[in-house]
Amino acid sequence: MGKPRNAISPTRKEDYPEWYQQVVKAADLAENTPVRGCMVIKPWGYGIWENIRDSLDSMFKETGHKNAYFPLFIPKSFLQREAEHIDGFAKECAVVTHSRLEADADGILQPAGELDEPLIVRPTSETIIGELFARWVQSYRDLPLLINQWANVVRWEMRPRLFLRTAEFLWQEGHTVHSSAEEAMEETRLMLRTYADFAENWLAMPVICGEKTESERFPGAECTLCIEAMMQDRKALQAGTSHFLGQNFSKACGIKFQSVLGKEEFGWTTSWGVSTRLIGGMIMTHADDDGLVVPPKMAPTHVVILPVTPKEETRAQVIEACEEIAKELRALSFSGGSLRVDVDDRDLRGGEKYWSWVKKGIPLTIEIGPRDLEKGTVFVGRRDQGAQREGMERQSFVEQVPNILEEVQANLFARALAFREENTVTVDSKEDLYAYFTPENKSKPEIHGGFALAHWDRDPQWEEQLKNDLKVTVRCIPEETGKFGTCIFSGNRSPGRVVLAKSY
Amino acid sequence: MGKPRNAISPTRKEDYPEWYQQVVKAADLAENTPVRGCMVIKPWGYGIWENIRDSLDSMFKETGHKNAYFPLFIPKSFLQREAEHIDGFAKECAVVTHSRLEADADGILQPAGELDEPLIVRPTSETIIGELFARWVQSYRDLPLLINQWANVVRWEMRPRLFLRTAEFLWQEGHTVHSSAEEAMEETRLMLRTYADFAENWLAMPVICGEKTESERFPGAECTLCIEAMMQDRKALQAGTSHFLGQNFSKACGIKFQSVLGKEEFGWTTSWGVSTRLIGGMIMTHADDDGLVVPPKMAPTHVVILPVTPKEETRAQVIEACEEIAKELRALSFSGGSLRVDVDDRDLRGGEKYWSWVKKGIPLTIEIGPRDLEKGTVFVGRRDQGAQREGMERQSFVEQVPNILEEVQANLFARALAFREENTVTVDSKEDLYAYFTPENKSKPEIHGGFALAHWDRDPQWEEQLKNDLKVTVRCIPEETGKFGTCIFSGNRSPGRVVLAKSY
Repeated sequence: MGKPRNAISPTRKEDYPEWYQQVVKAADLAENTPVRGCMVIKPWGYGIWENIRDSLDSMFKETGHKNAYFPLFIPKSFLQREAEHIDGFAKECAVVTHSRLEADADGILQPAGELDEPLIVRPTSETIIGELFARWVQSYRDLPLLINQWANVVRWEMRPRLFLRTAEFLWQEGHTVHSSAEEAMEETRLMLRTYADFAENWLAMPVICGEKTESERFPGAECTLCIEAMMQDRKALQAGTSHFLGQNFSKACGIKFQSVLGKEEFGWTTSWGVSTRLIGGMIMTHADDDGLVVPPKMAPTHVVILPVTPKEETRAQVIEACEEIAKELRALSFSGGSLRVDVDDRDLRGGEKYWSWVKKGIPLTIEIGPRDLEKGTVFVGRRDQGAQREGMERQSFVEQVPNILEEVQANLFARALAFREENTVTVDSKEDLYAYFTPENKSKPEIHGGFALAHWDRDPQWEEQLKNDLKVTVRCIPEETGKFGTCIFSGNRSPGRVVLAKSY
Repeated sequence: MGKPRNAISPTRKEDYPEWYQQVVKAADLAENTPVRGCMVIKPWGYGIWENIRDSLDSMFKETGHKNAYFPLFIPKSFLQREAEHIDGFAKECAVVTHSRLEADADGILQPAGELDEPLIVRPTSETIIGELFARWVQSYRDLPLLINQWANVVRWEMRPRLFLRTAEFLWQEGHTVHSSAEEAMEETRLMLRTYADFAENWLAMPVICGEKTESERFPGAECTLCIEAMMQDRKALQAGTSHFLGQNFSKACGIKFQSVLGKEEFGWTTSWGVSTRLIGGMIMTHADDDGLVVPPKMAPTHVVILPVTPKEETRAQVIEACEEIAKELRALSFSGGSLRVDVDDRDLRGGEKYWSWVKKGIPLTIEIGPRDLEKGTVFVGRRDQGAQREGMERQSFVEQVPNILEEVQANLFARALAFREENTVTVDSKEDLYAYFTPENKSKPEIHGGFALAHWDRDPQWEEQLKNDLKVTVRCIPEETGKFGTCIFSGNRSPGRVVLAKSY
């Protein structure tokens, strides 16, 4: 049959949301389950998550954080301690009300053993962690307290979408306590920089760092910083957030300490998190119409070797040569570890097998057949270069693999950055802004716009109007806002440009 | 003040259960929380769990298993598909009945958005994973399917105890599907051997491998294999289980495949798990009256260096020497990684600081003061040798550290094995068995007995009687049961001796 026009149907242009679902399916990353909004993360998807987790975890530990594990359940009364916080989460939480099942008169199992107080499956853990921090923090000597948790959380989602919005998701949540507002704010910034570093240098996903407006803040935060990335449909994805919580939660939970001067003070806290949503961001940043493209540093397998065995009599020899090259490659290092190499000798047609790896986004494929053995060559495919494959001299190729992977990693980042720059405009009037975000082709409303940088006087009424009119929001007030200017809505003075976009 | 008689009060002899709680507390491993039965695992305890997880995870991957992640929630109807299974778990499960909180007429938040079908927080995942496996398995080519999950699970516990029995705990659960009973049974045995290898060679905890009797089987299993360890109060701890599930769950969940001969058949499944309970086992195997003792391979930190700084003028010099030795040690390797070394320069009294590490069970402490600098020595404490510390020549000591840690690891295992052997008896009459398990000192019923090896004809009535009379159970039918003999209860023929003990 040869190569189909594209391995993924529909293409991005034809139907972006459906393309996304098909990429996830073709790469065998995850599936929906009969439990509403809850996905199963399959081995290839979970392998990517393990790499995300391990890379970030090292970064957290290098900056002095330690991991701990807190209860899954939060008593309802705890969640209510911070007024904005409960307002933000009450609408979408899983409530445990009973502690067993018991057969009723008809022999049907029904919830029984009603709890005195309902428990909420954590949507985030500020209040339960705050309760424990209040025990642990007594004196300024106990500060800063720098804790991280890797865990599952649940937020009931009405319109779930694999990785991007799921009722249950995996994440990490950092929680820290400091003796001053300045130090807590510095921590909030440090963790945002850590996320930006990770997003750009590991996921190869360019991000804009900035602050959320009041309407988009985390419920209970004084200030929410975020990283925002542009997906290939030119919508924004919030990929990580870091919150300065002031003394809101320390007052709600009683986190007090004796200062150097012997005075009792409330602690200053932060929290910050990224989730399996990053995988959704990675997909929509790099995948193409042939399927997933995984940045090498995040790939569960860097290189797959495909034996080409047309004749039974050379089969053993070819497989042996594949194992030999795998062994040589595994002895090489990449990104602080050994190269991860698989030999795929499944009993499948060559084309089908090759395309299964393309769809999984493997950075490098190597095909080896009987003629390659004779000639001392290998047939190499680089996922970032599409369908083209080329013969290369075996020995010099093997040595180059780590460099090639670095190149792939850099290329993916450069490409994504160029895409974002091409699709970012500076807008100086309300009319231009509305035109920019109004689809030319009404039947494909998702393919238009991008990031618009515009002056805004920070008055929430324009934010509200923009949301209603165009579904566009202020994604962030970037760290470098540039110069003062004139608000495109009111004509008032603006302290700097903000990033406007449609978003996930 | 000098060394207190013992760092932990009460001692093991004085009050074993309370000693356990105090060891956990003094080592800062975990705490109870206001959420009934749910603990918080603190950084030192979680660091041990991370080491357990990472070591086991490598073993699972080496044997061809891949990680995935399945939903936290199981629809009630799924759990009911296997009759014994639901019977086993209905009495202790957290039931989610609502999807949000809503203010009532008095403004009080109440559970709202009642679910059509209650969801159970997974107590174990056979049924939800089975549902998905039924989709994934079509042909013999898809088998074996070898999956593992690291996750939290919830079983409502009436008498929770840190690490040993908690309502929520962390664990791994392996789930596999095979095309034949033989292969599934081989997998069940392989994973039990993996657990035994891990328990003995990593946790330094000797275990007996065997099969559970019918009454102690996992709900829904055809055969449950287990590893059983002896704690220092001579009770048994079930430390890991591996289940051959036959076709019970594949029939309940519809896991069918087309065989090589084109016939549709049900798969043969297994499941196997270990949990944070292993940390409880590690504590009760090695800890002493001065606190925790962590086997070096499991220690979050292998060596801590304590600067002794009596005078301000030599302080900087001492700290520098400590950092230098830390650097040299970190360049050495142990157990497949780098040595993990901390310099503890907290502003604490020397004695207090030293004892804080003893109580945490750190394998090696190194104290360095101004006089050590002059003499070129270090003052070394080995946790497995109690309070004795000795001066050693600096340079030769540094090189020996990996060997010393190996020695500590081996010593802990040997000590635990000797303890088990001292406290295991062969019993040939019912009278001797009852005498063995009847406390001499009625006020300390926990310190008596041990493991008794006795002949039993496999008739459940004796098992039941033993449980009622002595709270003694058949811990397992060991792999090597030895010769046939005479049942001590009935005088009937017995196929081999079993292990009898009180247990956690």
